[in-house]
Amino acid sequence: MDRNVQVLLANRPTGAVSESDFEIVERDVPTPAPGEILVRNHWLSLDPYMRGRMSAAKSYSAPVEIGAVMVGGTVGEIVQSQHPRFKAGQFVVGSLGWQLYATSTGEGLTVVDPNLVPLQAYLGAVGMPGGTAWIGLFEHCSPKAGETVVISAASGAVGAIAGQLAKMQGCRAVGIAGGAAKCEYVVKELGFDACVDYKAGKLYDDLKAACPAGIDAYFENVGGETMDAVFRLLNPFSRVALCGLISDYNRPEPYGVKMIRSILVNRVRVQGFIVFDRVDLYQRAIPQLAQLVASGKLKYRETIADGIRSAPSAFLGLLAGKNFGKQLVKLI
Amino acid sequence: MDRNVQVLLANRPTGAVSESDFEIVERDVPTPAPGEILVRNHWLSLDPYMRGRMSAAKSYSAPVEIGAVMVGGTVGEIVQSQHPRFKAGQFVVGSLGWQLYATSTGEGLTVVDPNLVPLQAYLGAVGMPGGTAWIGLFEHCSPKAGETVVISAASGAVGAIAGQLAKMQGCRAVGIAGGAAKCEYVVKELGFDACVDYKAGKLYDDLKAACPAGIDAYFENVGGETMDAVFRLLNPFSRVALCGLISDYNRPEPYGVKMIRSILVNRVRVQGFIVFDRVDLYQRAIPQLAQLVASGKLKYRETIADGIRSAPSAFLGLLAGKNFGKQLVKLI
Repeated sequence: MDRNVQVLLANRPTGAVSESDFEIVERDVPTPAPGEILVRNHWLSLDPYMRGRMSAAKSYSAPVEIGAVMVGGTVGEIVQSQHPRFKAGQFVVGSLGWQLYATSTGEGLTVVDPNLVPLQAYLGAVGMPGGTAWIGLFEHCSPKAGETVVISAASGAVGAIAGQLAKMQGCRAVGIAGGAAKCEYVVKELGFDACVDYKAGKLYDDLKAACPAGIDAYFENVGGETMDAVFRLLNPFSRVALCGLISDYNRPEPYGVKMIRSILVNRVRVQGFIVFDRVDLYQRAIPQLAQLVASGKLKYRETIADGIRSAPSAFLGLLAGKNFGKQLVKLI
Repeated sequence: MDRNVQVLLANRPTGAVSESDFEIVERDVPTPAPGEILVRNHWLSLDPYMRGRMSAAKSYSAPVEIGAVMVGGTVGEIVQSQHPRFKAGQFVVGSLGWQLYATSTGEGLTVVDPNLVPLQAYLGAVGMPGGTAWIGLFEHCSPKAGETVVISAASGAVGAIAGQLAKMQGCRAVGIAGGAAKCEYVVKELGFDACVDYKAGKLYDDLKAACPAGIDAYFENVGGETMDAVFRLLNPFSRVALCGLISDYNRPEPYGVKMIRSILVNRVRVQGFIVFDRVDLYQRAIPQLAQLVASGKLKYRETIADGIRSAPSAFLGLLAGKNFGKQLVKLI
């Protein structure tokens, strides 16, 4: 008989995460109670926000308890249903955590069509990262045709979509990514106008060259020195959508941002945001993104780890920027 | 015959300003050409923004040239007019610089009523600082009754007005100021609910005690460590109006702000602004502020330096926080 495998939070890391912060356990496959379903997860999404949930520090969601299953987005198949709204054989996307099986009342789950786009796209371009890109770009970067939009972590699950949407909007899209291979992908495959390799060691100069008319909007996933370099090039009345600060997540102390003065003198708007604050926009975004993916107009890349037991090391790789595109774990 | 006395920019300071960065010269009183007026300035305003204009660094306005008269707001009397719209004996507010006399085409000058409020109030509560407070508070802090609004440099020309407007809006107004005397004034005379003395050395703890329900809006005039302390206490969906960063102006290197993560996790909006970007709001604000001052509902304090030759040392004092309320120079 099949067994459930779960990844639990074993310790709260300070600074860098290590594999020993996780514990992998085997359990019996749970039985759905009346009103519940049992889902066999096919794909697990790994995302930077999970680092925040490993800490006890105040954040937008409660931390994962020590000994609890790690939080995470999943897409899977209903294998048993005791719920009137759900049927075995349906596929559902939601947040069932780092595990092979989960029971659920169905709350927070959405039935998806596996024939419209590949199943795992509901965890990427047609899911939370895609919705984040859409909201951050259209609602907070407010780009107008002809403006220059800079996107950090440009080859990542969010950045890749944000930049392609900026291009469709008629903007000059300039990415920031780590390494020549990612930068080449961002320009040649995703169609950004330029991409700056922050690992080349002259981020400000390279960015300045890539943005001859300055920067009108910035989709920020990274923070740290990258934020300071971009802030030096912001134009008057530019907008910054603050989506993530991955460069800080594994530091014991956050980086001190020096270019706050640019916000003042350029009258910049900086808006922190979380995708789930705007369910209205999310619901508008997802069908559009599904159409764009289905018609091949929106591209993305995936890094796939094999099996639930590989999730911790894949997550460490994600925080270190070793993934290339959307980081997934294949569970079946 | 009377002489004109001018204060010129002699050097661009790096870091702290010194009196030797200015040069005081005597000149003949200029003669207005046809279409011009001659104004005898009565009051000169000293404001933190002037520090930025002494530097060649990119800012929202062009720097003052070396050898040119320092830029500054003035209110004075028209003593000769060759201009059809202006008459001798009228009082005008505008930006005629650090000098006793100036000719002008009238551009940027507004005729004011010296009987409605004291003449120098047009440089403070009923002028640029008051308009700045009004726009920053209502347009960018967006305070709702019952919310907690924190104002740094709370006894200053802008902060004092912003806090009193917040109180009128039904908010809890909490000031930050330097020293017990200023804090006592902010609470007892201006009517703020609390004021934290940053010089007491435990800003975060004191601020936390003064804001038991966290901070919903922040009117920022100071930057540096003060910004980090406030950012740690921001509530979800709070707003930051970034008006000034006086704690950085005399540093050779800006302070590095560590709490950027608070903008993200609390979905904060940070908006840099300059009063003159919103002439529409300024024109709405000034008559309201004049009524509030005339009726005694809006209080402020002034520090008055005597004579144009005292302007450089008074300006150094302003940057060091030695003034108490609006810093003026009496010219007549």
